[in-house]
Amino acid sequence: MSEYRERREKLWEKVRAQGVDAFLLVNVEGSEQPNLRYLTGFTGTFGILIVAEETLFLTDPRYTEQAKNQVDLEVLEVRGRWIPQVIMRLRELGVKRVGIGSTRTTLYLFEELKKAGEGLEFVPIGAPVEELRRVKSEEEIEKIKEAVELTEAGLQWILGKIKPGMREREVALELEFWYRKEGADDVAFDLIVAAGPQSAMPHHRAGEYLLKKGEIVLFDIGARVDGYCADLTRTVALGEPDKEAKEAYKLVLRANEAGIQAIKAGVSGKDVDAKARKILEEAGLGEHFGHGLGHGVGLEVHEGPRLSATSEDILVLGNVVTVEPGVYFPGKFGIRIEDLVVVSEDGARVLSAFPKDELIVVGRR
Amino acid sequence: MSEYRERREKLWEKVRAQGVDAFLLVNVEGSEQPNLRYLTGFTGTFGILIVAEETLFLTDPRYTEQAKNQVDLEVLEVRGRWIPQVIMRLRELGVKRVGIGSTRTTLYLFEELKKAGEGLEFVPIGAPVEELRRVKSEEEIEKIKEAVELTEAGLQWILGKIKPGMREREVALELEFWYRKEGADDVAFDLIVAAGPQSAMPHHRAGEYLLKKGEIVLFDIGARVDGYCADLTRTVALGEPDKEAKEAYKLVLRANEAGIQAIKAGVSGKDVDAKARKILEEAGLGEHFGHGLGHGVGLEVHEGPRLSATSEDILVLGNVVTVEPGVYFPGKFGIRIEDLVVVSEDGARVLSAFPKDELIVVGRR
Repeated sequence: MSEYRERREKLWEKVRAQGVDAFLLVNVEGSEQPNLRYLTGFTGTFGILIVAEETLFLTDPRYTEQAKNQVDLEVLEVRGRWIPQVIMRLRELGVKRVGIGSTRTTLYLFEELKKAGEGLEFVPIGAPVEELRRVKSEEEIEKIKEAVELTEAGLQWILGKIKPGMREREVALELEFWYRKEGADDVAFDLIVAAGPQSAMPHHRAGEYLLKKGEIVLFDIGARVDGYCADLTRTVALGEPDKEAKEAYKLVLRANEAGIQAIKAGVSGKDVDAKARKILEEAGLGEHFGHGLGHGVGLEVHEGPRLSATSEDILVLGNVVTVEPGVYFPGKFGIRIEDLVVVSEDGARVLSAFPKDELIVVGRR
Repeated sequence: MSEYRERREKLWEKVRAQGVDAFLLVNVEGSEQPNLRYLTGFTGTFGILIVAEETLFLTDPRYTEQAKNQVDLEVLEVRGRWIPQVIMRLRELGVKRVGIGSTRTTLYLFEELKKAGEGLEFVPIGAPVEELRRVKSEEEIEKIKEAVELTEAGLQWILGKIKPGMREREVALELEFWYRKEGADDVAFDLIVAAGPQSAMPHHRAGEYLLKKGEIVLFDIGARVDGYCADLTRTVALGEPDKEAKEAYKLVLRANEAGIQAIKAGVSGKDVDAKARKILEEAGLGEHFGHGLGHGVGLEVHEGPRLSATSEDILVLGNVVTVEPGVYFPGKFGIRIEDLVVVSEDGARVLSAFPKDELIVVGRR
């Protein structure tokens, strides 16, 4: 049985237990792309999956050929208005209560389905595919590990190249190009290269700022390999950093390690967050750590479970999460250290191996 | 008055006419990114805008610094669970009926707002921001034109470089890198470079296929400049093509020209589509043109209005749309020609200027 079929069967079991007799997944303009890929391997931006006693896959003529190559199901074609055609298929299947995901279905699509589907009942049933996706198989972890390894190799390469006077943008672009030439499908997100005071903005992207001697450079980067994302942050100094940065680095590292140590099956996202946050709070830096500790990573770079002060998510075996505490001093600098971790039998299995024991100084020559 | 403030005032007028006393726009993980950018200039992935008698902008600490640099409104910060904080702001404003967009708001978000917002009424009101965005200002058209010019310069450059034995992927990557070095923010979509039989898949991306002498190479490409997208397709032959490809090219060109000629304010998307489609149908190729004729382009590469066999959209001055007929012969080749066109006082004003009069043959040397 293909991995896709296995996933669809798990999904069917799950949604049936929620009292529906079909599950409808509509991927328009990529809205459900990661879920549809997870269930079928299809990577196009338009495709429809109906999971019921029978499973149907539909796409439009732009993607028919591609779907035939990618999907282990018969490819049915829709032309023109697709909603009536989906309704017709549901009627042919004889189903009545049709489950649909809540977190990606828009109010508009839901209304249109209800309007066209007289006699059918559409029931929002949460995020069943995302829930399945939280638990990674060994094959999936292997793919994430590959993405991490490529990400780290690229970081190693770019650290040998950066020097004062380069633009953040230029550094990020060189690194992205390297990843894609080395076999990444893509980058997992817009690579962040933030130097000097720009590093104080946790989600600053790479901009026009010029790297300067003695300043911090923060890399929050990730390659995507075979669909799976990496997410890694390392903060380095370009030439000898000042004492303040070194001190902050040590604290963030302690918070990162405390977070990793707290990870095991059965604990909550907020407990893990609290363990790391405590280190920074005790040092009087709690206010400077304004984001959550981490998030799941897989086919998407942000998925469940969440590690944050408010997260009730409970970690289970096979979750893959980031641990990424940071402190930010507006106008001055920011430090963040992020690793990618599998929740395993022995607690945290850290996938990232890039050195982090001290603030790495590059470009000394 | 800033362009952003002007847009917000237009939006306020529009939504007030729909009987609500506030409009709420929630951009989570980029869900409303183009709309929020249009209304504020903010480019981050998390931000909330409340448009009412007073206008409020909220983001979280990851983006506070960035928002202060980009947004002409006071930046309010949310930490932790943001829904209750948004509800509190709405209550402080004293509003009751809160409009929200239907096309990007998920069932989940809508339910959560309703749960947390006792005493408030949330009303789905269609896509008011997207409707405003359909009509481009001269400044916006200028930006799109810049994106088109960069796209064409890149095409010119890459046509001088391609040769048999190169991989589609490699060609697309070189071209993307060129765009981004030359000042594009990004590409407007994954560039399509489809050679030989791959060109018969309208949305094939660039893959492992090796370019071959005498075969078709289809480029569907676009740079993004200052947020605005270009979208351009040219089909060329790598060395002397066969007669069948030349004949198909001539027909597609006639369909492209017929579509452009049909464009003016007041006509419907389906009428424009029909004018182009008729050419291909009369030649017996109707079945080989399995997609719509075109779509609006702006901050997103796919927006309104649509040109398709089912589109009731009526063109108005300031719309910017693609005209992109194509024919596809599975297993053999495909031809598509796409221009970007402004609906202007004099009918269609074509923004793209790349030669298309005949199937260009490259790599003859």
